Amino acid sequence: MRVLATAVLLALAVPVAADEGMWTLDNLPRESLKQQYDFDPGAEWLQRSMKSAVRLAGGCSGSFISPTGLVLTNHHCVLGCVQQLSSAENDYVNDGFLAASRGEEQQCPGMEINQLEKTADVTERIRTATLGLSGKAYNDAKKAEQSKIESECVGDDSKTSRCDIVELYQGGVQHLYQYRRYQDVRLVFTPEYASGFFGGDPDNFNFPRYNLDMALLRVYQDDKPLQPEEHFAVRAEGAKEGELVMTLGHPGSTQRLLTVSQLETQRDTVLPFRLMFAAEMRGILRQFGSQSEENARIAQSDLVSVENGFKARSGMFRALLAPAVMAEKAEAEKALRDWVMADAGRREQYGDPWQEIAGVQQAWRDLYVDYSLVEGGLGFISQHVGWAETLVRGAEERGKPDGQRLREFAEAGLPAVRARLLAKSPMYPEYEKVKLGWSLSKLRELLGADHPFVREVLGKRSPEALAAHIVDNSKLADPALREQLWEGGAEAVAASEDPAIVLARSVDRFGRELRQRYEGEIQSVERRAAEQLAAARFALKGTSVYPDATFSLRLSFGTIKGWEEKGEPVAPFTTIDGLYARASDYDPYKLAPSWVEARPKLDMDARFNQVSTNDIIGGNSGSPLINAQGEVVGLIFDGNIHSLGGAFFMDGSVNRAVSVHPQAMLQALEKVYPAGHLLKEISVR
Amino acid sequence: MRVLATAVLLALAVPVAADEGMWTLDNLPRESLKQQYDFDPGAEWLQRSMKSAVRLAGGCSGSFISPTGLVLTNHHCVLGCVQQLSSAENDYVNDGFLAASRGEEQQCPGMEINQLEKTADVTERIRTATLGLSGKAYNDAKKAEQSKIESECVGDDSKTSRCDIVELYQGGVQHLYQYRRYQDVRLVFTPEYASGFFGGDPDNFNFPRYNLDMALLRVYQDDKPLQPEEHFAVRAEGAKEGELVMTLGHPGSTQRLLTVSQLETQRDTVLPFRLMFAAEMRGILRQFGSQSEENARIAQSDLVSVENGFKARSGMFRALLAPAVMAEKAEAEKALRDWVMADAGRREQYGDPWQEIAGVQQAWRDLYVDYSLVEGGLGFISQHVGWAETLVRGAEERGKPDGQRLREFAEAGLPAVRARLLAKSPMYPEYEKVKLGWSLSKLRELLGADHPFVREVLGKRSPEALAAHIVDNSKLADPALREQLWEGGAEAVAASEDPAIVLARSVDRFGRELRQRYEGEIQSVERRAAEQLAAARFALKGTSVYPDATFSLRLSFGTIKGWEEKGEPVAPFTTIDGLYARASDYDPYKLAPSWVEARPKLDMDARFNQVSTNDIIGGNSGSPLINAQGEVVGLIFDGNIHSLGGAFFMDGSVNRAVSVHPQAMLQALEKVYPAGHLLKEISVR
Repeated sequence: MRVLATAVLLALAVPVAADEGMWTLDNLPRESLKQQYDFDPGAEWLQRSMKSAVRLAGGCSGSFISPTGLVLTNHHCVLGCVQQLSSAENDYVNDGFLAASRGEEQQCPGMEINQLEKTADVTERIRTATLGLSGKAYNDAKKAEQSKIESECVGDDSKTSRCDIVELYQGGVQHLYQYRRYQDVRLVFTPEYASGFFGGDPDNFNFPRYNLDMALLRVYQDDKPLQPEEHFAVRAEGAKEGELVMTLGHPGSTQRLLTVSQLETQRDTVLPFRLMFAAEMRGILRQFGSQSEENARIAQSDLVSVENGFKARSGMFRALLAPAVMAEKAEAEKALRDWVMADAGRREQYGDPWQEIAGVQQAWRDLYVDYSLVEGGLGFISQHVGWAETLVRGAEERGKPDGQRLREFAEAGLPAVRARLLAKSPMYPEYEKVKLGWSLSKLRELLGADHPFVREVLGKRSPEALAAHIVDNSKLADPALREQLWEGGAEAVAASEDPAIVLARSVDRFGRELRQRYEGEIQSVERRAAEQLAAARFALKGTSVYPDATFSLRLSFGTIKGWEEKGEPVAPFTTIDGLYARASDYDPYKLAPSWVEARPKLDMDARFNQVSTNDIIGGNSGSPLINAQGEVVGLIFDGNIHSLGGAFFMDGSVNRAVSVHPQAMLQALEKVYPAGHLLKEISVR
Repeated sequence: MRVLATAVLLALAVPVAADEGMWTLDNLPRESLKQQYDFDPGAEWLQRSMKSAVRLAGGCSGSFISPTGLVLTNHHCVLGCVQQLSSAENDYVNDGFLAASRGEEQQCPGMEINQLEKTADVTERIRTATLGLSGKAYNDAKKAEQSKIESECVGDDSKTSRCDIVELYQGGVQHLYQYRRYQDVRLVFTPEYASGFFGGDPDNFNFPRYNLDMALLRVYQDDKPLQPEEHFAVRAEGAKEGELVMTLGHPGSTQRLLTVSQLETQRDTVLPFRLMFAAEMRGILRQFGSQSEENARIAQSDLVSVENGFKARSGMFRALLAPAVMAEKAEAEKALRDWVMADAGRREQYGDPWQEIAGVQQAWRDLYVDYSLVEGGLGFISQHVGWAETLVRGAEERGKPDGQRLREFAEAGLPAVRARLLAKSPMYPEYEKVKLGWSLSKLRELLGADHPFVREVLGKRSPEALAAHIVDNSKLADPALREQLWEGGAEAVAASEDPAIVLARSVDRFGRELRQRYEGEIQSVERRAAEQLAAARFALKGTSVYPDATFSLRLSFGTIKGWEEKGEPVAPFTTIDGLYARASDYDPYKLAPSWVEARPKLDMDARFNQVSTNDIIGGNSGSPLINAQGEVVGLIFDGNIHSLGGAFFMDGSVNRAVSVHPQAMLQALEKVYPAGHLLKEISVR
């Protein structure tokens, strides 16, 4: 058993095509960048990029674009916040929001922005701590060491510092990422829903497109606008067709190194379950939203999120069903395996990780639905139960030494957990009942009415009756009570008879059981085998590969470029006149009044959206698209329909990233909303 | 090609086990029946069975059980009728219905009962008519000859006679089925929803079970109760464990003879699409129904139907994902193919039908979603559009010679088409808008907002706006107008500017295009190849295999027998006391008041539901379970969870049919409702 050291990996790197891959900043495909693009970023360029980029803890990316703490990100990344700030009187979701002055900027409840300060390689330290161990012992030792490293890194600075172990190459390389935490994030500008999500679900993942999916936040520190160390300027004219452009952001998750048996698990178990679950939830949310305008507003953000996830997973599912994809994966796998098996020394060194991984797939398939519903929370979609679970589990975990806790309750991460728990957010009891009642009905359906856990949870109640009981009687919607229980710890939580807490105790108990089985019998086997696999792959190819996405900072390279769809060329840019041609009197193609009014003032040839060949995935939303000078030439908000297979493979001929063009952003701020005071702050070149 | 039978077939050994298969009455597995059960039904037994069995044109089975025209079927088979007869004032769905006298029996709108009178083999005649043809010419000639045969059979008697060509063995054998049609069918008794569907969706396809899924209809002729030629008696004590029991009914559709490439199409395209579509629709209906009691009543029947279909397809999907199933199918296919390929004469005679079928699968996969939405109607779920499509297409088709029409408008079937079109049924405009608006949104989503057909249909309207426009402005809810347009034919329909008719014209045009492609390029190839395949199979084995289900009369054989679930035995019978133990205060486990009240009077040890090893599938609902003496010993209403793979293969070790025991039916009629006047009519032994 041995693990790759990053240094070795870097030293032996040979070029691969630069347009594929989400590269860590310390391991760029430098040779092909030089060859393909004559681009050779120096340490200063990288440092400035790293410090200008930010991560929205909720799952998006962004960047500083002013010396006064303005952060550019997507409309859809702030929609949750906008919804929380909205009410029946102030419908910022549909009317948009623009703070006329800094005093009007409104804090986003629970929103946190992280800015990466430095990274370090801790692979060796974790390897030493887990030497000779396997199964649960291996898992526990690794977790303990990871938590220890994170805690040491955060030190006494947990309010402003966050440290995460990032497992690259399926755990083959372990990095420590240290972030600065900003928890006072305020909404400055967001367009109307009709502009920020023009075309809605039908146009989502499609192109040509006319979507002003932008928003501006401002980071505050000590109640004053932050003056970030670095920020990007916006290049008003954007980039030319064919020009090198880079995304700098936080791609969430790819699975490009999965073995065939793991891909089959995705295709046959994970994706079908998630898709059917999402489809039904979508129906529930759609019909709930159709009952009244207020309901529509309440459900909007969840509905968008469910529809987006559904469409993305549909693309992943379709990709895995394409026989060619699976055949190619199988072929690559066979080649590597044959190479290992052909030599006794290699057999000894690497074992048969494919077999080991394949050997636990059936167990995972059998466990997956139960796990997703109980430990994954899909059976209890509810703020009340979510709070209660954090309180119940948090109380127990915090009573343990740091290294023995579940990872998400490690000391270093507790401030963020607490902040999320205590964040104020509106409560819509009827909506809460609908979601909880429905998800409990799925729990009963999928585990079966006679499952002991279902009997424990429901008793003789129906899912809907239990949901109503909890929402009507739980007091957890009061943040003061949540704070009191959090601070009171195990004793206070144990004394609570709040019905959400009562339910969460059952969920916690069975969830731990499932998690133990997953981590002990499946995940630990997969991870250890993946490390073996990574080692063998490296030994054979001597090649530098990029790691799967891990919601950590990555650069991707590409050019502004259209593609061919069914034999017809798709141009890389759209212009503002196209918006007006596509508009109709009905959502999601109905123009916001501001755009109807501004029409005569706008430059109809100004570019609106654009596509580029960059390799991105969910989590990259809000990423700046930058040029070689480190100027913003676009704002990533989507991929085209062909990008959806990107979870598993990248097809550079048709896979495109979709971004908002600077011309559209600047025209909108200047003439549509108008927001001259913000334009003055933004660095524009 | 199913696993078990093919292995046997290739071994050329013993006849197939009698417990597998849905056999036509003219081709029973007589040898194994004699060996296994010492049962040898004579012509008289078969004739009596055929004449006692009936088919509900809507998709169920039933049987005469009195000399006065009483038909025993399932509660869930009459639910649509009950719903149509219900109103806010008379909620027969939830309160049940019992006609105290014949005068109170209420006609089910549009319901038709068919009773098989005779069958004939017309294979040769169709073969002659299509000799030497292929592709569209083959298809057209075959269709024309089929329509001609049906018309000759019906003659001038179309009001009371119905003739259908039934294609057995994937078209390898063609039979003509002549039915007597009964269109005056009245509701006599149905229990409350809570009793007829006790356990609801959670218990659906599960066992142990406590479901009084029964109903009584009465067939009228000339406004008087029909005196059927034959009827079954009910055996009060039922059958013993291990006793031979038969189902006599109309299994709808199985696909046990599909080739591997066709099964892959099911697994990768058909089932995932249908499942996700159904899941989302289920969410819509569930949430619509939750808005009020009235809404719940309105959506109930659709919701049950969608949930039932969803669960059934989930089982089929799971079955096809089991690697062992597909491997066995592939092995069996290879064996037959090898046998053909091993001999030059056989190669010449049968060709390579597997290759031909595989060759059109990608085209079908590419076409499937469009086809289902447009020609299959999933994009226009609405009574208005359904009526309009019948009118538009019917007008055009009726103008053609019989043999050139689309099959569903062949002269012989027109009376049934007309009856369905003109049937009175309640219209709930808001519900209609919800369903049509949603299904149009799926059309736009799945074909894409820029698809020419979507643009033609929607224009600049949203799906919801178009649905509202149609439902608010169409006058087709008036049966008199529908009759006027039907009778007026092409001219009247062409003159109509009813918005549903306008939409239907577009749907008809594009639907015909898709259908032509499907029938011409895919179906005709599959069918011809399937005939070749069937011919090869015959050459090896004759008709000792059973044909796939075709919603025509079949016998299946089996015994009353439990099974083993996760190592624990499941007993074959439940008793009435179990119902009370399972009951709770909430749907779907809430007892109807009648059962609460009757509790002290009931025999708690009386049998409620039972399982048997019979091979059944959807369409068998309402089938009598009969013993060797031709007495009713059960009422089929479901299969267990393992029966769901039955669409593709039969696993006799765990696949079970679920039926209502006569003891429960008789106790209910005697003591719960009570319905002594009906009990007196029913022949009980």
